[in-house]
This record gives sequence, structure tokens and C-alpha cells, in this order.
Amino acid sequence: MTKYLFQTLSFVFISMPLLAQNLPRVQQERLEKTLFELAAFGKMENGETNRVAFSDADIAGRRYVMGLMAEAGLDVHIDAAANIIGRRDGLDPSKKPLAFGSHIDMVPHGGNYDGIVGSLAAIEVARTLNDQEVATQHPLEVIIFSNEEGGVMGSRALAGTLTPEALEVTNSTGFRMGQGIQRLGGDTTKIYQVKREPGSLAAFLELHIEQGALLDRGGIDIGVVEGIVGIKWWDVQVSGTANHAGTTPMDLRQDALLAASRFVIAVNEVALATQGRHVATVGRISAQPGAPNVIPGEVLLSLEIRDLSSEKIQGLFTEIQARASKIAAESGTSFTYRPIDATGAPALTDPKIRQAISEMAASLNLSYISLQSGAGHDAQEMAALSPVGMIFVPSKAGISHSPKEFTSAEDMANGANVLLRTLLALDRQWP
Amino acid sequence: MTKYLFQTLSFVFISMPLLAQNLPRVQQERLEKTLFELAAFGKMENGETNRVAFSDADIAGRRYVMGLMAEAGLDVHIDAAANIIGRRDGLDPSKKPLAFGSHIDMVPHGGNYDGIVGSLAAIEVARTLNDQEVATQHPLEVIIFSNEEGGVMGSRALAGTLTPEALEVTNSTGFRMGQGIQRLGGDTTKIYQVKREPGSLAAFLELHIEQGALLDRGGIDIGVVEGIVGIKWWDVQVSGTANHAGTTPMDLRQDALLAASRFVIAVNEVALATQGRHVATVGRISAQPGAPNVIPGEVLLSLEIRDLSSEKIQGLFTEIQARASKIAAESGTSFTYRPIDATGAPALTDPKIRQAISEMAASLNLSYISLQSGAGHDAQEMAALSPVGMIFVPSKAGISHSPKEFTSAEDMANGANVLLRTLLALDRQWP
Repeated sequence: MTKYLFQTLSFVFISMPLLAQNLPRVQQERLEKTLFELAAFGKMENGETNRVAFSDADIAGRRYVMGLMAEAGLDVHIDAAANIIGRRDGLDPSKKPLAFGSHIDMVPHGGNYDGIVGSLAAIEVARTLNDQEVATQHPLEVIIFSNEEGGVMGSRALAGTLTPEALEVTNSTGFRMGQGIQRLGGDTTKIYQVKREPGSLAAFLELHIEQGALLDRGGIDIGVVEGIVGIKWWDVQVSGTANHAGTTPMDLRQDALLAASRFVIAVNEVALATQGRHVATVGRISAQPGAPNVIPGEVLLSLEIRDLSSEKIQGLFTEIQARASKIAAESGTSFTYRPIDATGAPALTDPKIRQAISEMAASLNLSYISLQSGAGHDAQEMAALSPVGMIFVPSKAGISHSPKEFTSAEDMANGANVLLRTLLALDRQWP
Repeated sequence: MTKYLFQTLSFVFISMPLLAQNLPRVQQERLEKTLFELAAFGKMENGETNRVAFSDADIAGRRYVMGLMAEAGLDVHIDAAANIIGRRDGLDPSKKPLAFGSHIDMVPHGGNYDGIVGSLAAIEVARTLNDQEVATQHPLEVIIFSNEEGGVMGSRALAGTLTPEALEVTNSTGFRMGQGIQRLGGDTTKIYQVKREPGSLAAFLELHIEQGALLDRGGIDIGVVEGIVGIKWWDVQVSGTANHAGTTPMDLRQDALLAASRFVIAVNEVALATQGRHVATVGRISAQPGAPNVIPGEVLLSLEIRDLSSEKIQGLFTEIQARASKIAAESGTSFTYRPIDATGAPALTDPKIRQAISEMAASLNLSYISLQSGAGHDAQEMAALSPVGMIFVPSKAGISHSPKEFTSAEDMANGANVLLRTLLALDRQWP
């Protein structure tokens, strides 16, 4: 991992150099135990857990989590968007809440760590504060977002970006989102009232497993997330001329799949030739008419570009289009592009929160690097409301959305302790 | 068309230098009239004709054609495979029949020339012989094959290569082939009895529109078909590693679609770099899991190679495999190949028949070139039974399997006259 900047553990948190040793720490075994207990809700005969949003397992798992939150001394309620919110008063009622949390719903065939580590770590942090009777100036809110995997539903409701169309979408449980919200104890008739005003939160923090392998391969404890990439999707149509594959000589073809193949390679070459951590992917392709004995006249494919900078995404797309124009001219084909609504704009994390996370990691003698999140998260939506910070912990081999997800108890506790200290640092530093 | 050999009109048919002027000729207007009349069976409101095998229109069209055959003095019957056979006695009962014909069924959204020109020209040839009271030494058989477009059904029955599985296949009319044969007046209980013995025919001749554009673009009257290409199909599986498109850096991917795209280009490059008239096509492709935000872990695609030589097909495939191995090694993917049964082995036409066709075209002052048939035909199956010859006439822009098919009345008549003279030449020359 020599290509990634590895920062040595030289920072010490400026404002509390002597207190660091005495700060509370989370209980690693207790945190791990809650993860195993939550994994039981939706566990199947093959040992894997299936807990897609709105399923009976989701409802049961949420009930378990609400119990944990109440045990942690939080005042728990379900909002109209079915988010679980646990509040704790602050000493200064004039201050806005510091919020932190993640989600416990899973993709189909998912694992027990994505979202769950961050949710249970948030609860463990609250429980630690409660156990140690640590008061904060700011009120605290632990938020377990509803249906993250099915379109960051709960956080979109809070950010005011949930659309009526989204409520009509059916997930793999067979329930439409609107029905699902009712099942989870929300109230679709009041769902738009959960919207928070920008500036109504002091900050939002999310701990999450890294869904790449930078931390695991580098043997690094903590990822300080610079931002969550923006994602742009296009449907690309390549038009040539369908023709008889037996009677059309090789040099008289306008083969849409041949042109599309050159396009797929061009996308990869443009992405590789440009410096940065952007990614560009063609994940879906079909050729029409799609018979072995017919030269494809039309190909439909998807193009996805992700980066922290919208300008960078646009620049890459422009370069790809230029390459495609050349391919079109050389092959007698044409390319058209239709932008598709994806998960939206890049969300940068707050520089001061990034610095606090780095310093708190250092104060715990944990190694850390800066990285970006290539995946979407609730924090991306929450960035519309307040400064956000994200802490990543290693996921074995970078695996996510798979029953093979794994993060060690030590890594989970490391992340939770960084979350805890960052929260306390913000509580002291933040307005 | 300078790259294709254009033979000048220097040949004169050796065995009948003086008779050529006096040979009978077909009636162009009568031939064209039958084509228009047949087009009425299945004509839709938009003016296009829909006459897929087994349809009511097919049944009505066959009835019309059988009437024409009887008018031409043929002794007409439907065999158990629903082929329409019109016989005419020869002067020498010891000689085997000279057979000629084609098919009148259409693909869905097809045109009025593919198969039909050859069928009606064969009938016009028989009618001309009848009108002119020209006797032949050999018995003659005009064969209108059943369901050519749905798997050369009738000719396979004659060649003995029709399988019981084929009879279970349903075409676009909704009828299974077995049901269709009954509808057309065949008899599935006796279908295997129509099989002819190899050597039981003196020769088989088929006139057909060219399904490429060599004749039309070159302004050439007649194509002397060297052979009907063999077709080999493979299902190709490209295996990489599916992964999160947002979190997997560009340089850590094993993208099956990227490798597949290089394969599609390699197929094209190998085909273009090798001398000859072979074709190689990838017509079908799909990527798994097929989501815009997932790097494809697996791609399935079709590979088709056609050539007159089975060895050439194998050589091209071997070269493509070598290129794929290199792609696999460079991209961390793997390729596997599954051969699929396609329409079979190459069928070369008889050199003496080719020479007769060339000489007869020359005797009519028609320009001609040698070419291969990239499409399959009934003659390909008939090659198992006897020497075969094929005569191509121009199709506008090489279009076939489309309502836009067009061959001029003059080109049809030219082809029919070449067919007529070749038949008479074979009758004189052939044992």
C-alpha cells in the first residue's frame, strides 16, 4: 500500500493532552456480543442472516436494538419515516444535537457488519457515556436509519429529499416502501414532517466498515473519510446496422457490439489515464437483436462514474464522449447518452471533524489514513443538514454486501473509541 | 468490387455451340406475375406479406403454387414431410431424377423473394419445358421444401437428418413442427420414410437471391455458388470477479466485461487479419450480475464462425482462443468455450455443375462471378444425397429476411434461364 499516504502517529489532541489517558473506553466484548445477538434475527439454516428492510427479521432486529438503546439510557422513539431515534439531553439546552448512527437493514444475501457495526458502536458509545456518567454540553441523538440499502430512505426523509415515487418502489420483501414504513412503525401520512432544517444539527458522525480493502490490505486501523463520492449514471445506446452474420463481409459491417466493446475499453482507459481515485464502470450490457447469427444493430449499456468532485465526473464523461465520437466515426455507428438519476452529488466531510477523527485515532495509538467512500451512506444525505464526519474500520478483504463480511471485535472497538472521543472533542470544540 | 474476381464473358458451352441461340427461354412477365400473385397470400394492411411456415397464409400459398405446378404439366404430390414434389417423366427410365427447387415459406417480417424467386423460377422452368414440349432424358423433380426458415425441415427429412427433437420446436405461428407438418398435408407417422438414399438423385439445383450485396454492388447478373458455408457456434463464458463498482479501485479489478470487450475486438481482428471470405461474429452478450454499480463478474457471449472449410473455421477458432488466453492472463479472468450445434458442416457445390452454370450464364451474355453462400439453404442438406449446384441472382443492397427484399424481374428471368440451360446441359452431360 505504499501508494497510499500513511501518516505516522505523531498527532496529539491539542486541547486535552493530559486527559486522553483518562477518557472512557467502550467495552469491546459487550459490543461484539450485541453484534452476535443482532445477527440471530433473520438467521437462516445455513447460518447466514437475511434481514432486508421491512422483513419480519428487520422488525425483530429493530425491536432488539431499541431495547439496547433504552438500556443505554436513551429516550427512544420511531419517527414517521421509521427511523429509530434515541435522544440524550445535554447540559446546555441552547446547543443543537450532535447526532451519530448508521443502519441495521441488510441487502439480500448481505452480511452482519455493513451498517450494523456503526449502529451498534453508536449505541455502545451512548451506553459507555451512560455507564461512566459522562455528561455532554450538546444533546445527543443516536439515529438508526430505516431502509438504507433500499435507497437511504430514512436519511432522505430527514434531509427532505425523499420523493413520493420512492415510496412506490417495492423491495425484495414484496412490500412497497410506503407499506414498509407502516410495518416498521412509521407513518406515511406524516413522513414529510420528519424533514429537519439545514443547520438544525451540530454535526453528524457515522462509523462504517470500509467497503474497499485499503485498510485491511494496509493493516491500518482507522480510515478518515474525506467525502462520499458523487455517482452519475448514464444509459448509453450504440446504434449500428443489424445484418445477416453469414452474408455480410467483415469489412462491410456496422457492428454495434464491436463499437460498444471499444467504448468499454475507452471508459477503462480514460479512467486509468486520469490521476485520482475516481472510478468508471460499465456493469450492464445487452445487444439487439441478440442472436448468434445476427450482427448486433444496437447495444444498450450503463456507464457509471464516481468521484468526490462533480467537475471531475463531468470532465471524465466529456473525455469518454470524445473517445466515443472517434469510435463512432471510425465504425459507422452512433452513441447517445441518457442521464439517469443515481444517488446524487458528492458529499465532502467537514475538515475540522476529519482533523478531530485523525487526532483521536492518534491519541488511541491507532494508525489511520485518509480515504474516500466509494459507496453511498446515510451520512451523504445528512450532509445537507450539518457538517458530517465518517470513520471507517477495516473489513476483511474489503468484502461487503456478502455473508463473508467480517470485521474483528478489536477493529470494531477501535472504531467505537474513535467515535466516542471524536464526539466528546466536538462537544467541547463545537458551538 | 475490384477485390472480387470478375470473370469476363469468354466461355462458350463446348457441347452445344450452335444450339445455344435456339434454346427455350422462360417468360419473364409470367414469372414476375406469379411472384406478385403469391405475395397476395398473407398480405397485410401495411402491404407486407407474412407467410411463416404452417400459417393459414402458408397453406393458401402452397395451394396456389401446387396449382401452378400442375399447370406446368407436373405430377404433384405432398410427401410425408410436407414437401411439395412435382414430377415429370424422362425419356430414359433408367436415369435418376434431376431435382431443382427452393422454398416459399418466410421468416417473420420477411420478404417476397428469399426462396420464392427460386421456387417460382423452378416452376417457370418446368412450364417452359412443357410449353415448348422439350423432353429430357432424366426424370425431373421440382421440390418446394417445407419450412426452410424454421430449420430446413423438409430438406432435412429428405436427407434423413431431421431429429424427433426438431418436431417439438414451436415456431412463431404457435404450432410445433409436428403439428405444422400435419397442417400442411404431411404425415408425421411416416415422416422418416421420405428419406432418400445418397445417390438416388442425379443432381440438385437451387436458384436463390444472394443474401449479400456482391452481385448488386458489382452490377453482376449471376453468382455461381462455390459452396454453402459451414457454421460453428460456441457459448463463451468470461469469468472475472464481481465487485462493488464504487469501492474497488480501477487497478484492482478483474472486470469480466472489460475482458469480454477485448475478446469481441480480438474476434474481429483475427477475422480481418486472415485472408478469405470467412466471417466471425459475436451477436449475443450479457453481463452478470448486470447492475450499473457492480463490476461484472461473468459475461456470456456467443461466437459464430462461418467458412467453406471446416479446417479454416477450426484454425480461426484456435487463433481466437490464443488471443483470449492472452487477454485472460493480462486481466485475471478466464475463458471457457462450449460448442453449440448449429446448422452443420460446409457443403461444397459440384465443380462440374459450377462449370455448367458459368458456361450457361456466358451463353446468355450474362456476367457472373464465383461466390460462396454465407447463409444456409436446402441445397446444403441435399448435398448429402447428390451433387448440388446453386445459382444466385442479385438482391437489392443484399437485403434479405426483410420486407425490403427486391430482385428485378429481369434478374429473376436471367436466373431462371441459367437454371433452365444448366438443367438441360446436365441432362445431356450427366449419367
